Amino acid sequence: MTVMLHVKTPEEVLELIKQEFVPAVEIEKVPLSSALGRVLAEDIAAREFVPDFDRSTVDGFAVRARDTFGCSDAIPAILPLQGEVLMGQAPGFALAPESCAAVPTGGAIPEGADSVVMVEFTEDYADGTIGIAKSAAPGQNMIFRGDDVYPGKKILQKGRVLSAQDIGALAAIGCVQVPVVKRQTVGVISTGDELVPCQEIPGPGQVRDVNGPMLEAMLQSFGVQVINYGIVVDDEKKLGDTVALAVRQCDAVLLSGGSSVGVKDAACRIIQSMGQILLHGIAIKPGKPTILGKAGNKPLVGLPGHPVAAYFITQLFVLPLLGILTGRNMPAYTVTATLQESISANHGRAQYHCCRLEYQGSQLLAYPIRGKSGLITTLAGTDGYFSIDRDCEGLPQGTRIQVTICGG
Amino acid sequence: MTVMLHVKTPEEVLELIKQEFVPAVEIEKVPLSSALGRVLAEDIAAREFVPDFDRSTVDGFAVRARDTFGCSDAIPAILPLQGEVLMGQAPGFALAPESCAAVPTGGAIPEGADSVVMVEFTEDYADGTIGIAKSAAPGQNMIFRGDDVYPGKKILQKGRVLSAQDIGALAAIGCVQVPVVKRQTVGVISTGDELVPCQEIPGPGQVRDVNGPMLEAMLQSFGVQVINYGIVVDDEKKLGDTVALAVRQCDAVLLSGGSSVGVKDAACRIIQSMGQILLHGIAIKPGKPTILGKAGNKPLVGLPGHPVAAYFITQLFVLPLLGILTGRNMPAYTVTATLQESISANHGRAQYHCCRLEYQGSQLLAYPIRGKSGLITTLAGTDGYFSIDRDCEGLPQGTRIQVTICGG
Repeated sequence: MTVMLHVKTPEEVLELIKQEFVPAVEIEKVPLSSALGRVLAEDIAAREFVPDFDRSTVDGFAVRARDTFGCSDAIPAILPLQGEVLMGQAPGFALAPESCAAVPTGGAIPEGADSVVMVEFTEDYADGTIGIAKSAAPGQNMIFRGDDVYPGKKILQKGRVLSAQDIGALAAIGCVQVPVVKRQTVGVISTGDELVPCQEIPGPGQVRDVNGPMLEAMLQSFGVQVINYGIVVDDEKKLGDTVALAVRQCDAVLLSGGSSVGVKDAACRIIQSMGQILLHGIAIKPGKPTILGKAGNKPLVGLPGHPVAAYFITQLFVLPLLGILTGRNMPAYTVTATLQESISANHGRAQYHCCRLEYQGSQLLAYPIRGKSGLITTLAGTDGYFSIDRDCEGLPQGTRIQVTICGG
Repeated sequence: MTVMLHVKTPEEVLELIKQEFVPAVEIEKVPLSSALGRVLAEDIAAREFVPDFDRSTVDGFAVRARDTFGCSDAIPAILPLQGEVLMGQAPGFALAPESCAAVPTGGAIPEGADSVVMVEFTEDYADGTIGIAKSAAPGQNMIFRGDDVYPGKKILQKGRVLSAQDIGALAAIGCVQVPVVKRQTVGVISTGDELVPCQEIPGPGQVRDVNGPMLEAMLQSFGVQVINYGIVVDDEKKLGDTVALAVRQCDAVLLSGGSSVGVKDAACRIIQSMGQILLHGIAIKPGKPTILGKAGNKPLVGLPGHPVAAYFITQLFVLPLLGILTGRNMPAYTVTATLQESISANHGRAQYHCCRLEYQGSQLLAYPIRGKSGLITTLAGTDGYFSIDRDCEGLPQGTRIQVTICGG
């Protein structure tokens, strides 16, 4: 029953994930008001012109540009005022040559007009004529029908996590039922005889379950539904039953804890019995004792018990895996900061560090958070994290590092 | 009734906001499972030791370090196995000199022991003794009581938006009722005779309301409750009544649209009648025609009707203002990217541009999104934005720019 698998580098793990799991996108339609933060499941193209009419961008007078050529402050063009366009209404008339029409910002431009002169450059002579003191160029101060959107124009690409400005664009084109990826459901199981729920006072030899609430919050931030199966004691039968239930109910299962040898072996046997083990051990610090398996196309992850290790494995591998399953874009932007303390590193394993960030003028400073591995307080209040390559012996103070933001 | 106020620079506007509005933090307690993304209202310090006992970080044997000094593979120290510590239980014995105790990862270390030897460096002779092949240093492979947290240690600072790792830290110290800032309620009103709700087909001269859904989504992303008062036609009485209702029901009111001169004046008079106008016009592009007023300590903002302008004014001034009212930390990190096209700029006004971001290897490239001002499609699908200083004539292609991320 022992499975011999080599410890893989983070790059190898991501490659393995891409090979072993296939996108399985289920689509649902949600109202626009519920689409924020959801993953777009289809490309969105417009079916209409926006705006559907030529529109003024200023308060002023719609004209034929040629009727204003050569005019100036000294010699204004004097044009009869043919009428006024009201907001939200069709003009109701076509502009006659050598005349003008009052148009508000956003108002429709009458047929025949090809430009708008701002009200600031005009004078109302109160005799039915308007003096135009500045010549207009054709197309000036107006948006043409379909300038913003025309039928067939692609507005948004599938895979995108919808932001507030995307919601605005969808509103503009009247896309009020939005095709999004159905939310995944992920099961979270904490194991360990030493764990008590966080609302309880730990007895001798006990500690509170940190990973359960933390993983639940990480998954919620990511937009995933969570079923928290609570704490399961180190009993292979009970653990196996809970994992089997979770596999039936969820799209992925995270099993955290069980750092002791016996439990690690039990977790291996359980994951093996549900499907197959893909990976046992990642060359990363913290987070080495990680198990990745699958039941069909459903990931089963055995996370380390240490909260910091569980955090990084989830951030670096589990969320990208969930992203692959849903065809989600996962842009990973980093900010550049200056390391304020030297950091030593182990050889042979990529090393991850949490840090606080602070601006000093326009310079962003990174203060690494120190502490023994496994201390939850190395996560509390952190603003981001950075990595040190596995073949690097450490980073001297003053190094410019790339920090991934992860904190409030 | 005309109010003469100078157009202010963005820096002057932020200064004015700090002077005119005072933090008004209301605190409520929420369960830990609901605290993600909320603003912490009080500093959090621990009241207990975490862990509350000396704890092993490895599977192995607890020893007195001095009993292992000088041992090696060739000449192991042979120590009687006094007992085994079980996970989640007190050891129940103190370690006698020159003996050892089996301890699992995370297990409690018996009194008398000062270090743990990893199981990999031991051999069980199956006669009640253990061979130790590597000498231990005092404190090795263990976490001491309170190493992570001790009573009075500050874990998190107020003003922080709680992240998943903060939730983990709060779980660790048993803070299951979290003091957070009460959510603000912000009213959103769209004005304009040309507007129809986004689920309707616009008639001649009409367009869909974009700002209502977009502002609602921006405020929701920020963690604010929104009351959307819908579209109010350009009627000073009706608009005044709606603003008055919103001021009673909300902590802040955003009035968007009303770009035409008459409506702008009406918005001014209404805001003036509710309290006072602080600002009329910001030297920024897009977004110049912005009105900021207050009713008591409640902000009343007249946003431009153009969605892109409304977006930037909300992002740059309204959210920071809401942050000041709630004592919220607002870290503003930017990523460095290389501008892929030249951008010209107006003199005299800070200019904001949306862009798409794309990695080319490790280089982040920024593609500015072009389009006439006011086109919603210049917002759709954007990944971030950057600014051009008011005294800058533009940025050549290849400029390294600082981009604020705003997109999915």
